[in-house]
Amino acid sequence: MSNNINKKEPPLGGWGLNVCLSPALIPLYDVEDYIVVIIDIFRATSSICYGIENGATAIIPVSLVEECAAYREKGLDHLLAAERDGKVVEGFDFGNSPFSYTKEKVAGKTVVLTTTNGTHALHLSRKAKKIVIGSFLNLTTLSNWLKIQDENILLVCAGWKNNFNLEDTLFAGAVVEQLKEANFTLDDSAIAANDLFQIGQHDINKYLKKTSHSERLKKLGIEKDIEFCLQVDLTTAIPILDGDKLVKL
Amino acid sequence: MSNNINKKEPPLGGWGLNVCLSPALIPLYDVEDYIVVIIDIFRATSSICYGIENGATAIIPVSLVEECAAYREKGLDHLLAAERDGKVVEGFDFGNSPFSYTKEKVAGKTVVLTTTNGTHALHLSRKAKKIVIGSFLNLTTLSNWLKIQDENILLVCAGWKNNFNLEDTLFAGAVVEQLKEANFTLDDSAIAANDLFQIGQHDINKYLKKTSHSERLKKLGIEKDIEFCLQVDLTTAIPILDGDKLVKL
Repeated sequence: MSNNINKKEPPLGGWGLNVCLSPALIPLYDVEDYIVVIIDIFRATSSICYGIENGATAIIPVSLVEECAAYREKGLDHLLAAERDGKVVEGFDFGNSPFSYTKEKVAGKTVVLTTTNGTHALHLSRKAKKIVIGSFLNLTTLSNWLKIQDENILLVCAGWKNNFNLEDTLFAGAVVEQLKEANFTLDDSAIAANDLFQIGQHDINKYLKKTSHSERLKKLGIEKDIEFCLQVDLTTAIPILDGDKLVKL
Repeated sequence: MSNNINKKEPPLGGWGLNVCLSPALIPLYDVEDYIVVIIDIFRATSSICYGIENGATAIIPVSLVEECAAYREKGLDHLLAAERDGKVVEGFDFGNSPFSYTKEKVAGKTVVLTTTNGTHALHLSRKAKKIVIGSFLNLTTLSNWLKIQDENILLVCAGWKNNFNLEDTLFAGAVVEQLKEANFTLDDSAIAANDLFQIGQHDINKYLKKTSHSERLKKLGIEKDIEFCLQVDLTTAIPILDGDKLVKL
């Protein structure tokens, strides 16, 4: 007998591989029919991948610094990460730099991470079959896992205040690159993201320098963070949402 | 004295040249600060450009076949264009094929055109400084006009039921191509649209064949319309919104 006896049949034309270019477009999809990947390359989902890889027990994403602060009142032994204008907010343990999510700092700890765009995208996707976290750091492990789920995949770009951005789209295109030979039907945005990845892939950092966002990031003094976030396959953990916490799959 | 005495000063960094990838993202822009270009390549804005070029007095875009039908009750000598599933609705003069918008048929006439995506985009942009209509047919004339307006430009892709589509985005990228050497600041979506145009420009029809939309259009039997809509610089008229009517600029 085949060992595919429990394998689900894909719909005609294969499973959907769709890219949602902004959280504002999430309502166009029936997210309950999808595994959703949340993408916020600079820097939330990169830091989350790195933190979970480095042994953080869980990472709790919240929208506002105030929500993050509220965890302190609860008297729990959580690390609190909050930034404003690229600087750690006074009284918090650290900010959103992936360099804060090392083994020494986060192993065995729960981190509360303030990320407006990422939390917004997570919240709008909450009815999905599963929600996982993607970044260049875990690209291949994530793609290999997605390939064998036998489900529709929705790659959600967290963007910037609902605006399209190139870094999240390029990463979505990198995932499409790894999945497109499998049995998936691409929508127009998946085709576009993949084509943009083809253009940018040989030097993503250089490609992104064209963007105005790049100027903003430069002003924040986080160029080393940017370089770090664009490293491919540094990690193998896949963070997955469990209740309100991101944990290792 | 300079003849630039009435020339408006652009903001620091130049006028904005932005691409709105879906009508659902229009609320992210302060449209009152922009000249808006509505783009619905297959086939509404192509047919509008061709009809205005061919001497239609005005074209009135409406969302629903029922609204179009209501014009008949008014007893006006308007041509009524309404389609469903690629076929002219019974009792109407013609559908959305650009081949219906010839001189013989539309010169001196007002046409009421049913276009769901186009009307939706127009409605959400109604507070713009000006609203004009773009298609490959009037690409260069439109771009040359935009270049000398001394205003921010927002290229609005009408898409398909608020979904991103490649044909509208590629056209936006073609406009960016013509404007980018002038004094404009591009947002990430303008950069992306332009890069996609660079990939597709040598054979846009072939490039668009990758899309699932292309299958849908093929089933409608409108492949000749598609070819027609992808012709560059066939016309020189720029349709502009005046009240609820599109007229020649």
